[in-house]
Amino acid sequence: MSNSPLVNQLIEALRCLPGVGPKSAQRMAYHLLERDRSGAENLSMILDKAVKEVGHCEQCRSLSEKTVCDICLSSKRIRSLICIVESPADVQVIEQSADYKGLFFVLMGHLSPLDGIGPEDIGLELLAQRLDQGEIEEVVLATNFTVEGEATAHYISEMVNSRNIKASRIAHGVPIGGELEYVNSSTLSRAFSSRQSF
Amino acid sequence: MSNSPLVNQLIEALRCLPGVGPKSAQRMAYHLLERDRSGAENLSMILDKAVKEVGHCEQCRSLSEKTVCDICLSSKRIRSLICIVESPADVQVIEQSADYKGLFFVLMGHLSPLDGIGPEDIGLELLAQRLDQGEIEEVVLATNFTVEGEATAHYISEMVNSRNIKASRIAHGVPIGGELEYVNSSTLSRAFSSRQSF
Repeated sequence: MSNSPLVNQLIEALRCLPGVGPKSAQRMAYHLLERDRSGAENLSMILDKAVKEVGHCEQCRSLSEKTVCDICLSSKRIRSLICIVESPADVQVIEQSADYKGLFFVLMGHLSPLDGIGPEDIGLELLAQRLDQGEIEEVVLATNFTVEGEATAHYISEMVNSRNIKASRIAHGVPIGGELEYVNSSTLSRAFSSRQSF
Repeated sequence: MSNSPLVNQLIEALRCLPGVGPKSAQRMAYHLLERDRSGAENLSMILDKAVKEVGHCEQCRSLSEKTVCDICLSSKRIRSLICIVESPADVQVIEQSADYKGLFFVLMGHLSPLDGIGPEDIGLELLAQRLDQGEIEEVVLATNFTVEGEATAHYISEMVNSRNIKASRIAHGVPIGGELEYVNSSTLSRAFSSRQSF
């Protein structure tokens, strides 16, 4: 590498970003230093601030710089309904698309015994406390449809049902606008078995 | 956006990186905050340091935190040979691949009258001084083979020749390992006109 040591350090540091390999990191470093030093300064400052200030909402575990996040504080949400998701990105997607007006609970992961991730690592003790408070009437399970996501949903559904609270799972099926030809077979077989009367 | 304000600010700030749109910026922000806070802290620190300390080498104009960069200072380089490139990334590529052992001069751009980029903006006064010092015997023009790059090479070649110094241009032609079928027609016609005896 014929770069100056500090430029090399910057390239190396940029590789902590997901999906950024050596070539992109180099391109980013040059771009910032040659064309956008104010953007770089701003990024440095906000990154530092975010790392120091952003923690987790005490109620839903989502990322927030406040003790309790805006969604959990909002008086416009249905407080008897709580949706369980794996990550803050899922909260985003649901907020952007859906008519969902309940609260959230963010696991920040999923059960994965092989990786040593158990119920306490995904905040299920906190969830149990919430359920025991008696405010929640329905828990919507919106973990991913992966093996781990399904196992996590199953585990939580038992936790919920044992407290006589309703647990539901968001529906599997053919995506809107999807052509049958391009839908994978397990999705299609679930779409048939979950068919609803017209 | 249902993110906390600071998370949104971070997503916005990450968009100063080239090739990073709203989706990737969001993914990066979550990744840093959820899984790599030490990487984020390190990036913030180095970014700030680089913006403050990295300037341009006084001799070759490349990015460097020293007054004169390592290549310009090196006693192992051929000091009578200088290669003109458009950006520090080009220096990298040449250093990685080539047997080139001369010095560099980095234009940090190319002539572009329509954008108001003239000879003084790409450091040609500094280059003229270098040429007038009498140490340089050959100038290798390695600007890009774009319209602007070619025009810049042409302009500099005249500057060089007027001082009775040799100017050369790196060769056009079919890339090594390239199949004729996939080479564009102007490259192919240049490959024919620049053919060399076997």
